[in-house]
Amino acid sequence: MRETTVVRLSEDEIQLNDPILLVGLPGVGHVGKLVVDHLVEKLEAEKVFEIYSPHFPPQVMVNEDSTVKLVNNEMYIYSAGETDLVLLGGDHQSTTTDGHYELAGIYLKLAEELGVSKIYTLGGYPTGKLEHIDEVMGAANTPELVEELKEHGVTFKANEPGGGIVGASGLLLGLSKFTNMEAACLMGLTSGYLVDPKSAQSLLAILSKLINIEVDVAELEERAKDMEKIVANLMEAKQQQQGVLRDTAVEEDLRYIG
Amino acid sequence: MRETTVVRLSEDEIQLNDPILLVGLPGVGHVGKLVVDHLVEKLEAEKVFEIYSPHFPPQVMVNEDSTVKLVNNEMYIYSAGETDLVLLGGDHQSTTTDGHYELAGIYLKLAEELGVSKIYTLGGYPTGKLEHIDEVMGAANTPELVEELKEHGVTFKANEPGGGIVGASGLLLGLSKFTNMEAACLMGLTSGYLVDPKSAQSLLAILSKLINIEVDVAELEERAKDMEKIVANLMEAKQQQQGVLRDTAVEEDLRYIG
Amino acid sequence: MRETTVVRLSEDEIQLNDPILLVGLPGVGHVGKLVVDHLVEKLEAEKVFEIYSPHFPPQVMVNEDSTVKLVNNEMYIYSAGETDLVLLGGDHQSTTTDGHYELAGIYLKLAEELGVSKIYTLGGYPTGKLEHIDEVMGAANTPELVEELKEHGVTFKANEPGGGIVGASGLLLGLSKFTNMEAACLMGLTSGYLVDPKSAQSLLAILSKLINIEVDVAELEERAKDMEKIVANLMEAKQQQQGVLRDTAVEEDLRYIG
Amino acid sequence: MRETTVVRLSEDEIQLNDPILLVGLPGVGHVGKLVVDHLVEKLEAEKVFEIYSPHFPPQVMVNEDSTVKLVNNEMYIYSAGETDLVLLGGDHQSTTTDGHYELAGIYLKLAEELGVSKIYTLGGYPTGKLEHIDEVMGAANTPELVEELKEHGVTFKANEPGGGIVGASGLLLGLSKFTNMEAACLMGLTSGYLVDPKSAQSLLAILSKLINIEVDVAELEERAKDMEKIVANLMEAKQQQQGVLRDTAVEEDLRYIG
Repeated sequence: MRETTVVRLSEDEIQLNDPILLVGLPGVGHVGKLVVDHLVEKLEAEKVFEIYSPHFPPQVMVNEDSTVKLVNNEMYIYSAGETDLVLLGGDHQSTTTDGHYELAGIYLKLAEELGVSKIYTLGGYPTGKLEHIDEVMGAANTPELVEELKEHGVTFKANEPGGGIVGASGLLLGLSKFTNMEAACLMGLTSGYLVDPKSAQSLLAILSKLINIEVDVAELEERAKDMEKIVANLMEAKQQQQGVLRDTAVEEDLRYIG
Repeated sequence: MRETTVVRLSEDEIQLNDPILLVGLPGVGHVGKLVVDHLVEKLEAEKVFEIYSPHFPPQVMVNEDSTVKLVNNEMYIYSAGETDLVLLGGDHQSTTTDGHYELAGIYLKLAEELGVSKIYTLGGYPTGKLEHIDEVMGAANTPELVEELKEHGVTFKANEPGGGIVGASGLLLGLSKFTNMEAACLMGLTSGYLVDPKSAQSLLAILSKLINIEVDVAELEERAKDMEKIVANLMEAKQQQQGVLRDTAVEEDLRYIG
Repeated sequence: MRETTVVRLSEDEIQLNDPILLVGLPGVGHVGKLVVDHLVEKLEAEKVFEIYSPHFPPQVMVNEDSTVKLVNNEMYIYSAGETDLVLLGGDHQSTTTDGHYELAGIYLKLAEELGVSKIYTLGGYPTGKLEHIDEVMGAANTPELVEELKEHGVTFKANEPGGGIVGASGLLLGLSKFTNMEAACLMGLTSGYLVDPKSAQSLLAILSKLINIEVDVAELEERAKDMEKIVANLMEAKQQQQGVLRDTAVEEDLRYIG
Repeated sequence: MRETTVVRLSEDEIQLNDPILLVGLPGVGHVGKLVVDHLVEKLEAEKVFEIYSPHFPPQVMVNEDSTVKLVNNEMYIYSAGETDLVLLGGDHQSTTTDGHYELAGIYLKLAEELGVSKIYTLGGYPTGKLEHIDEVMGAANTPELVEELKEHGVTFKANEPGGGIVGASGLLLGLSKFTNMEAACLMGLTSGYLVDPKSAQSLLAILSKLINIEVDVAELEERAKDMEKIVANLMEAKQQQQGVLRDTAVEEDLRYIG
């Protein structure tokens, strides 16, 4: 395979009502991925596109039944009535810089084809601290959308994140300037050290209001509780070691347990 | 050379009976490469294709007579009667991510051209322990093939290997979804630290039954005995140092001796 | 987006008098970027081209109003009368080697289109010492331009910088051999550890004479004073630690504070 | 510049008698580069091609008169009478794997165009020891050429160098299999830590006999003497530190002084 390939799972034309695209790929705290994977499962969204690319790692994942799945990104649809959903999730982001640009361009084209007029890319905002903060930070491609999101409880800080937004979440926002779509990035605050289902819950709470959809969050809550115990143990261990080991060493050990 | 180039060594059309493709390229413990190189030698398989690529390292190997060999991958055939063999071996895998995808695509096309309907990619499964375990783990592209292989003694564990299967072995399995071929990856358990002819023997034992071919394993046994001595020395040294040096430091030193 | 894209902000033909191109992209001490960004702001130069590229990082910057800006390079024009200016600035340089070549080629084409006959690429020359030296070093693509610049106070040393000039500043000079343009690189001396507005002032002083334009430098001066305090603190700290810590360790900590 | 570009310095057709190509690009001990640069200077060879490429670093070198030179490779010719010479030298090798393959392919095409029937690529063979050994090791693309070179004092060892030959020297040998040219790699033994004019002298001595050309080596001898003093100092320092510092630490410090 030399080129990024979009596999269309149905030959029927897809008809959607004013759909919103939600993007949740692996990233900081896997917050975005947790939310989109959860929505796909709970809404029983229909998979319509599989995207394979030489920019993804040369790798298969092994399923529960020992069959394999080639690493990919996937697009799902869900008919909610007035405002339908398109969901983009996947195993990996591009491994190359130019692959990020190519894939983001392809995703925007697919979104246009499906009639998407608004995009929410979902991610995590690293705080460097283990304590949970129930907050979602945003950035958008128009001042109007910034205002709209403020009214729904999203917080905005001038020039934050300071290092910009890197990867698919940022790039889809940036490249949306060449389209007619509104786009915002919503980032659940998270330590940056662990997969964070609690942050995903915070993000999902705000998102549910934005897209006017309710989903069962029991599973996320359960995973969040498990993670809280791990975090509590870690913080206790950290306090005991204070003065003995450098904090950073502990924190480095925690990176992406989960 | 700007493009991957397939050199065909014969102008005659190749006629094979229902051939199976065996793939053994360098990788964990070089288990897959050891098996395929051994089969090529013992079966006196006929080289039919040489594959050169700008994705391989810019390098020549020096032969015994001081002539050189440009780094490549090679495809061999062997007429076994009812089920013929196609064997793919080589000096290196791709050095780039997209090269992996390109080469895997080329190998699948060559396999289709030769009439291959089943693929076994051969590799190693790293255990992190020096003790030999006589076991071959598998993953496949259909549940039916998983069942068939179980009956021949291949073990399967849900979602294992946890990190997926990386490189040509995994990718050929993954990309086989775009073909009509059945495909499985067979992984001999191995420490992951050393070239492992003993694991290659375990893998060859199961493979021989699968492809119904017997080969002399005297040479592999000899190499395995040499390696056993090295391992025994290493484990002794390790026990003596226990408490003195971190284990990992020792193990790192052993990485790919052989 | 698969290709570098030049967005033209006006459909009118651009008419300039014998323009000089000034290039100030991020680099050593950000000296060149500080000068060009300052000129663009103070001269209220008009943005005419935005350059987007898959060779830039896959990233957006967040503005003060929480809207986003896709990472890019930008070209501005300023009508000074007899000799007009073209200014090239931006967030990042190419992240890839071949991207450097591609972008430099594009910039030279745009410069030719605008009628540019002379280029000054602006950068920093790392001294490895925190003390400010009020000096601008140069290199050029013709001996005549070397002489001309000497008369304006630019210093030249045989075969210096010893490691050549790397990145856009160097490449634009090198590739100018395929055009009819004169080109020089002007480098303000700078520690190499910090963003250096004081070096930018030195560079701007000489440049002002070269292009016969005066600009208010109050802001650069203010930033330079802030930086002087930081440097003074650092040097004091360094003296105190002398004998205790390796100097290089301190210096490494200072790298690009600012 | 998006593509590798060959600049032809003359429009006249180049007429050569049965020319031999000598290749000396930067590499181990810069041995090959020292020999070719020396030959170009002493024979006053005529530059015929300049090769520029986005696979070279994005960099200019600064000349003695403060003008710049875009990093490149260069091809020269020298009419010796019966057997003419083509010489390939340069500032850098490719920075990318596929660039190595592309450039080697281009060099072979240019060689074919000039009527080259034999290639000697020149390099260094790292011994890891500071003591000079007056020996040149070889590898070739035919057993006949191996024999011919043995008669001229080149040494050959089975499967040596063990890691193969990497870079342009190896690749030109490897890719010559797709041409009608004979090709050998001649490697002067060298520590691998320092630029080594003494090894270049050893290599030049054998090469002179092979190509039947005599050149003044006074300059190389002078540089070799300077380097001998440096090596003597280093070895003394090393002996004094023995037991105090690890040898490798010292040796690492010496890497490519010169």
